[in-house]
Amino acid sequence: MQASSTPGPDLDPLRARSGFADLVDYRLTRWQSDEAEVQVTIGPQHLNRSGVLHGGVLCTILDAACGYAGCFLDIPGRRRRAFTLSLNTQFIATAAVGARLTCVARRTGGGRSVFFAAAEVRDQAGTLVARADGVFKYRGRSGEPEGEPAI
Amino acid sequence: MQASSTPGPDLDPLRARSGFADLVDYRLTRWQSDEAEVQVTIGPQHLNRSGVLHGGVLCTILDAACGYAGCFLDIPGRRRRAFTLSLNTQFIATAAVGARLTCVARRTGGGRSVFFAAAEVRDQAGTLVARADGVFKYRGRSGEPEGEPAI
Amino acid sequence: MQASSTPGPDLDPLRARSGFADLVDYRLTRWQSDEAEVQVTIGPQHLNRSGVLHGGVLCTILDAACGYAGCFLDIPGRRRRAFTLSLNTQFIATAAVGARLTCVARRTGGGRSVFFAAAEVRDQAGTLVARADGVFKYRGRSGEPEGEPAI
Amino acid sequence: MQASSTPGPDLDPLRARSGFADLVDYRLTRWQSDEAEVQVTIGPQHLNRSGVLHGGVLCTILDAACGYAGCFLDIPGRRRRAFTLSLNTQFIATAAVGARLTCVARRTGGGRSVFFAAAEVRDQAGTLVARADGVFKYRGRSGEPEGEPAI
Repeated sequence: MQASSTPGPDLDPLRARSGFADLVDYRLTRWQSDEAEVQVTIGPQHLNRSGVLHGGVLCTILDAACGYAGCFLDIPGRRRRAFTLSLNTQFIATAAVGARLTCVARRTGGGRSVFFAAAEVRDQAGTLVARADGVFKYRGRSGEPEGEPAI
Repeated sequence: MQASSTPGPDLDPLRARSGFADLVDYRLTRWQSDEAEVQVTIGPQHLNRSGVLHGGVLCTILDAACGYAGCFLDIPGRRRRAFTLSLNTQFIATAAVGARLTCVARRTGGGRSVFFAAAEVRDQAGTLVARADGVFKYRGRSGEPEGEPAI
Repeated sequence: MQASSTPGPDLDPLRARSGFADLVDYRLTRWQSDEAEVQVTIGPQHLNRSGVLHGGVLCTILDAACGYAGCFLDIPGRRRRAFTLSLNTQFIATAAVGARLTCVARRTGGGRSVFFAAAEVRDQAGTLVARADGVFKYRGRSGEPEGEPAI
Repeated sequence: MQASSTPGPDLDPLRARSGFADLVDYRLTRWQSDEAEVQVTIGPQHLNRSGVLHGGVLCTILDAACGYAGCFLDIPGRRRRAFTLSLNTQFIATAAVGARLTCVARRTGGGRSVFFAAAEVRDQAGTLVARADGVFKYRGRSGEPEGEPAI
């Protein structure tokens, strides 16, 4: 399963990088209660063989942003983690090399064990490129308001 | 939008690589009428910061395999291309570094302009890791039985 | 497949009733370019055997509203029709007997042959009950700006 | 939210009817561990104003069958109940009045708190009419192997 988590205490909370985040080169650019923003600048390495943005790039940032939207926790030394259960993506427009895509996600509902999030990807001109809805499950005790130790 | 296509005449049809395919390092390992198989071996670069397989990797191979499943064309010099309209992914189990994931996709319906495909990702032990359904739109004249010139 | 259409010239455009609309007893309460609103008041006939609102009721109004959102046409004697290709629904909260649910849908993108729509269902208190995204295909020549004869 | 449940001890387990099941007139025709089958015969009351099968009918039986697939429990006096979290439906073909549609659902994964199910709807000729994947959450203590009292 796919995990999202509050960064540990030794990490810049706006640099929630991972192996795949580094590979795809997306960044968490804003993070607050029930909201997260992720950005990526499209390069040749994100294209399909037809020279078009690969859908996997969009799914990747939508999944990441939705997961973060439900895991924000403003308590030092504690964090929340979650698994993606399902992600439904609509591919509405495309984007060319050089485009900077911004994905904004909001937690739309849920409780202590499960949450829902929705996200949109737009380019610099504000064109809607993709949308997604996701269902996520908190891990461990992380659904509790206080989260779990961030060790 | 996200494009899938029959490889051009100068390409090994089983090496349908692209920028993002190279980056993620997945391979088209089988391709026939209405079916496609894609494989990826999980490495550290596919992980999330929590050390778990990133959902974007699964979406990427599910999208690719579903797209190929509807674009096979056994006519030299012609090819079919398609856009992903929507992709719905369920994340059912996880996979560790070293796991070789196989994604098998089938075209499940559709006509000349739109097609549907479904895919499953399993690990070597046969465990179901993820599933997806997608809706795709053929590009150009490529929905016609004869496809379009592969230039 | 599932069809949405502009009502014919002899119908009140705000009474887009059908067999299933009558059975479920939902109403099209607002309809304008790229937007539609559908309402239903929950009764015992909408419940599940566990006494909880059946998910099928929510899917029904979400599908209807999304379809209408893309089919509005302000040209007398002509109409647009569409098929649902996929509908992705998130069930976020429940609703009790007596609740009046309002589903607001917006066309979020697309072109002459395919369109995307998103919708939310809220109760009188404004609580988000469900969300959906759908992909639709125009029928016949109805994707053209002028639609098709409404006969 | 939408609940699925094991019928109580006083009910024929193959007559899992509810308000909406009665209204739509679908029946649970087979139920065993991790599988369920629901049938409906299409009548004029299931049609759209365009005279085509309403998508809500298909979502209704797909949701019901998927929910049942994860809630079977062969222990007298106990039952399992679940909520639908998300349902993703693909509408692949249509069906005319008189068609008898059979929806077969399988639990595809999950654990004690959440399960996944997938379902297909086919007509008498075996034509694939629709598919869905759903994510469900067990209610109360019903995720435990022994379920909860069926009172």
